Amino acid sequence: MGTFRVELGPRSHPVHVGAGLLDQVGKLARDAGVSPGRVALITDSNVATLYAPRTADALRSAGLEASVIEVTAGETSKSVATLSSIYDRMAAAEIERSGAVFALGGGVVGDLAGFVAATWLRGVAVVQIPTTLTAQVDSALGGKTGINLASAKNLVGAFHQPRAIIADVATLSTLPEREFREGFGEVIKYGAILDAPMIADLERDLPRLLARDGAALEGVVERSLLLKAKVVTADEHEGGLRKILNFGHTVGHALEAISGYEKYLHGEAVAVGMKVAAHLSEKFAGLSADESSRLIALIERTGLPTSAPELGLSAQIAGAMRLDKKRRQGDIEFVLLDRLGHAVTRPLGLDAIQQELSR
Amino acid sequence: MGTFRVELGPRSHPVHVGAGLLDQVGKLARDAGVSPGRVALITDSNVATLYAPRTADALRSAGLEASVIEVTAGETSKSVATLSSIYDRMAAAEIERSGAVFALGGGVVGDLAGFVAATWLRGVAVVQIPTTLTAQVDSALGGKTGINLASAKNLVGAFHQPRAIIADVATLSTLPEREFREGFGEVIKYGAILDAPMIADLERDLPRLLARDGAALEGVVERSLLLKAKVVTADEHEGGLRKILNFGHTVGHALEAISGYEKYLHGEAVAVGMKVAAHLSEKFAGLSADESSRLIALIERTGLPTSAPELGLSAQIAGAMRLDKKRRQGDIEFVLLDRLGHAVTRPLGLDAIQQELSR
Repeated sequence: MGTFRVELGPRSHPVHVGAGLLDQVGKLARDAGVSPGRVALITDSNVATLYAPRTADALRSAGLEASVIEVTAGETSKSVATLSSIYDRMAAAEIERSGAVFALGGGVVGDLAGFVAATWLRGVAVVQIPTTLTAQVDSALGGKTGINLASAKNLVGAFHQPRAIIADVATLSTLPEREFREGFGEVIKYGAILDAPMIADLERDLPRLLARDGAALEGVVERSLLLKAKVVTADEHEGGLRKILNFGHTVGHALEAISGYEKYLHGEAVAVGMKVAAHLSEKFAGLSADESSRLIALIERTGLPTSAPELGLSAQIAGAMRLDKKRRQGDIEFVLLDRLGHAVTRPLGLDAIQQELSR
Repeated sequence: MGTFRVELGPRSHPVHVGAGLLDQVGKLARDAGVSPGRVALITDSNVATLYAPRTADALRSAGLEASVIEVTAGETSKSVATLSSIYDRMAAAEIERSGAVFALGGGVVGDLAGFVAATWLRGVAVVQIPTTLTAQVDSALGGKTGINLASAKNLVGAFHQPRAIIADVATLSTLPEREFREGFGEVIKYGAILDAPMIADLERDLPRLLARDGAALEGVVERSLLLKAKVVTADEHEGGLRKILNFGHTVGHALEAISGYEKYLHGEAVAVGMKVAAHLSEKFAGLSADESSRLIALIERTGLPTSAPELGLSAQIAGAMRLDKKRRQGDIEFVLLDRLGHAVTRPLGLDAIQQELSR
């Protein structure tokens, strides 16, 4: 098991990564300052069957009496309607100010339960227990929480740092193959923007990782979270540096939006976006053709897509990018690489982006 | 016009009190750091007719393009359903991270719009423009925001300090008499817990105040806000001192709850609660009979009620108090006065409270 702290002043908190940690969530939460008493365990319909009883047992053995609040698996649960039903169940469960919310699941559960915790009684503790690779390497850390509106994703939310993050890599063994591989989108991103040796290690270890070797996964989850923690510590509220975490995401988000959020998983869209960003990096940030090819080849070896027919709809992609960046005119701030392991931002005109999309 | 700052580190902000300030809200907001561009003006159906166009004009003249978002007047608008509809209108109005929310109205609008601002794009600026006496002397300051659930009030919320508070006492001239007088519940509370000379001044000035004399109202609004600011600065998140602001509220909240939130306005329930608290203060905190009588006599002169038939239902009141304090057993922490102008807290058994209620 690896443990480190995210240093954020009064919001500092521990991160635990290891196999079998689910059985220790109660103890680890108590160690992080969660008070004994009634708590909520928010999870989704897929994860509940697999892990909710075991997690609730682990909580109970540490004096935390969990009411399980289950939502339907999938992005549609990040809605005002589901939020409202969770609030009612929080009231019925009599979760008090000294209580806590445990978020057991992937990114949807983490975002939703985190937002519930941010707004319940003006803020109660949340412990993130991510069970997908994407959530373990990325979304569980950083304090971003939120829900979607019919008109757009993540317009409503709050920054609410967890009291602790507990990533049990053993839960990755039950992930469907596509959801598992999706996680490598964010993993490769961390190497690309911050850690060139990590890219070399991924090139070497990918077969073991894709075979879900526990030790290899533990290493990669911890390394990704350490990199993200470094960025979040430097820029908690996305005023500057944190923007580099959006490498591959500008095109990725646009691709998700114009395909109606159904066709591509987030990590798949990011993978496609990273290839576009790699080419733009060659043109506008001095990334060498050799390093660009290495990055794209690594993405391809994970089985993630690196192209999408929708990229041909370059005008639609551009429109979605403007909407995502809340910019109606002018350049788009794009995260690029000047070398593997180092990100920069560059203002790019839409014409330059569309030209790359259309090649 | 009086202006002072609430000192809360990075969340410090100005408070302006004066007649006719509505015409300066744009300039004052810009001075407080609100960026030019699209903003939301959230108000209710009563206030919209009276003051929304004038406020929107004042915003426009300072480069703030306001989309007016109107909700039905009344406590029922503090709901998840209204919140959801406001979010949709915020999306349609394309309010960006650099945008702002202006809360024009009483406590309901302030709480609701403040919560919208706390959660829109993970937090945008809010400017509180209170138009009722209760909101001007009390609820606009302190950063508490939230909505109600069907099961209970204010379970969902966030601490979100305003960027500025702009209290135009001229708007008090259009308040219906009952809503106007309601505000004296909180005004007298501030004197009772923190400022004995203020009680003497209220005894002297009450006729002018009840006649809505502008200069007198400006003085009392500013004095109340200064007192609240002192408490909030010392204890922003209600860890300790801020609890004294609940003088009269323990019984007041219970009275509101058991009467279904329809019969009594908040300030009326607090007035009844203050009389009970005055008697308990004599018994358990050494308040002199003379000062207790002075306090009660002052409340009575405002026309606010000091008794309620529901107090006879002492078991129901006690049950509602337990629920309000999230306590299933044990003593209730009660805010009492040991002398006029000085509050203390005392743990009181339910039997002692019920005995006082039944006399």
